[in-house]
Amino acid sequence: MTDTTVAAYAAATPKAPLEKTVITRRELRAHDILIEIKYSGICHSDIHQVNGDWGDGIFPMVPGHEIAGLVSAVGPGVTRYAVGDRVGVGCFVDSCRTCENCVAGQEQYCTGGGMTATYNATDRDGEPTLGGYSTHLVVDENYAVTIPEALALDVAAPLLCAGITLYSPLRHWGAGPGKRVAVVGLGGLGHLGVKIAHALGAEVTVLGRTPAKRPDALRLGADAYHATGDPATFEQLAGRFDLIVNTVSATLDLEAYLGLLRTDGTFVQVGIPDQPMVVSPFALVNGRKALAGSMIGGIRETQEMLDFCAEHGIGSEIEVIAARQINEAYARVLASDVRYRFVIDAATI
Amino acid sequence: MTDTTVAAYAAATPKAPLEKTVITRRELRAHDILIEIKYSGICHSDIHQVNGDWGDGIFPMVPGHEIAGLVSAVGPGVTRYAVGDRVGVGCFVDSCRTCENCVAGQEQYCTGGGMTATYNATDRDGEPTLGGYSTHLVVDENYAVTIPEALALDVAAPLLCAGITLYSPLRHWGAGPGKRVAVVGLGGLGHLGVKIAHALGAEVTVLGRTPAKRPDALRLGADAYHATGDPATFEQLAGRFDLIVNTVSATLDLEAYLGLLRTDGTFVQVGIPDQPMVVSPFALVNGRKALAGSMIGGIRETQEMLDFCAEHGIGSEIEVIAARQINEAYARVLASDVRYRFVIDAATI
Repeated sequence: MTDTTVAAYAAATPKAPLEKTVITRRELRAHDILIEIKYSGICHSDIHQVNGDWGDGIFPMVPGHEIAGLVSAVGPGVTRYAVGDRVGVGCFVDSCRTCENCVAGQEQYCTGGGMTATYNATDRDGEPTLGGYSTHLVVDENYAVTIPEALALDVAAPLLCAGITLYSPLRHWGAGPGKRVAVVGLGGLGHLGVKIAHALGAEVTVLGRTPAKRPDALRLGADAYHATGDPATFEQLAGRFDLIVNTVSATLDLEAYLGLLRTDGTFVQVGIPDQPMVVSPFALVNGRKALAGSMIGGIRETQEMLDFCAEHGIGSEIEVIAARQINEAYARVLASDVRYRFVIDAATI
Repeated sequence: MTDTTVAAYAAATPKAPLEKTVITRRELRAHDILIEIKYSGICHSDIHQVNGDWGDGIFPMVPGHEIAGLVSAVGPGVTRYAVGDRVGVGCFVDSCRTCENCVAGQEQYCTGGGMTATYNATDRDGEPTLGGYSTHLVVDENYAVTIPEALALDVAAPLLCAGITLYSPLRHWGAGPGKRVAVVGLGGLGHLGVKIAHALGAEVTVLGRTPAKRPDALRLGADAYHATGDPATFEQLAGRFDLIVNTVSATLDLEAYLGLLRTDGTFVQVGIPDQPMVVSPFALVNGRKALAGSMIGGIRETQEMLDFCAEHGIGSEIEVIAARQINEAYARVLASDVRYRFVIDAATI
């Protein structure tokens, strides 16, 4: 087998619209699998990277790191997957495999040069990585996960980034029975946070800017919804939460949010604000509070998350689009006009 | 018994020098003990409060919340102490006693109106509290601790604030064998952090601005010392620490310090910077790091700390002064010219 030419949607230059193109996927190495992509989610970070918001990108750029599909070929050394298996790929496709974090299954925090992102990165062979807005992907079997039969591939795709981004901190900071969890922002990330935190047994409150998403929040499993545009919210909920997971990237009044935490509570940032975070030391010291961050999850934990979601019937709320609608979808994501994730039907690429 | 008039040093107005005066201590209530103060430490926060740096204070102000002495009288209901007992009083003298935190022995985080500070606060009876720069103090027995025989009263006094301020976060965040702890700043707080972290079995590194305090740091139990004025320090120690306890109140480049943490590491603020803390979200998200705060400790934990210090022969490094030297000592604290704590000999008041 040799390198394969496949269809994809790419931004040719920073801020350029996504257009159909062809790209090359590498010949299968011993441990590689070829995936026929069925669905690929659109993550807000795709837009940031296409637009160069996080620094220079590698162009042409094929975004996409919420990938669900079927194994269509395997390299000679592959043991974990067989042709026809339902698999997913998330935000990274390799890591050093030998550092303490990789060995511990926390490849997302690889200290041996860092994880290799699924797109907009330089692979360990020196080639640029190209993501999931494509018909096919080649990936090492150790960086794919099994999508359980109970999960449809379309609703599973966003779990590979949005799902694990919420599952990992919810688990790490002990969301479960007897814990009060607030999810800030009911979007692609937040709506999965609500479902997962609820399934973990926590009391879940959604903090949204306006009351608009209250019905959805309650339908998705939230126990309560409060509008942060109403200053009374911050008085009413003072000292209430063990854990606040913030999915919004807009700058917040952190002091106000820290005031919602109980003693020993943690405010976890999973979105990346455009601006540095500013916090009063008093707000942390009084009540032994913490401001923390969390980034996706490792391969083992991603598998655990998919199994958990399958067991609890948790998929993303999605709107499936054709590839030609990607640019329109980007505009709608920026306008917060999506409930709650766009997923590209790869058959339309 | 009626209210007692005793000698004290007070600031008559904000920023005024401390001068000898007389104050009244309340008649003993059922659970009160009268303490003949032997030594009273000078904490940097005394200076902040005398100077009104943290907002309006209550004047005349008698500072002092690192108090060691002997019980000289007890109220009729007292069960924990007898005349002659060696006791200490720290940063607070009362709290609501019924909130979740008080019941859990974390009175410092009392949510039922907050702890009643040892001075510069309004007591629950409406009277201003007056601190340890005095010959005597009346306090409820539940807000005093026993100073073990193995600890001299002069070196024990600073443990009541500086000691517990370091002990509590070191214990909370698991300093011990196999953990790498950095203490930022080798002053009144930091030097006790070094001794305690070392006794807990952690590998201890001191991060000081200049190399000047290296010999002291090593003598006190540090395994290593690095000067933060040397940019190479931040490269050399990147990703090294499980826990960084920051005792300095000057504004730091938090991103640089967060870079010194391992995955899942925590940077704990115990000093109160003058300025808000500014942190890049990437610095928290990448490596699941946390920026946290911690404030002294509860009564039970303060007793545990004193017992631990007695067992390990840990006292503060002190310079005993006469009361008339308080103002000079304040100037020297502000000039960082103290190794490592001034303690007032109350016999000179």
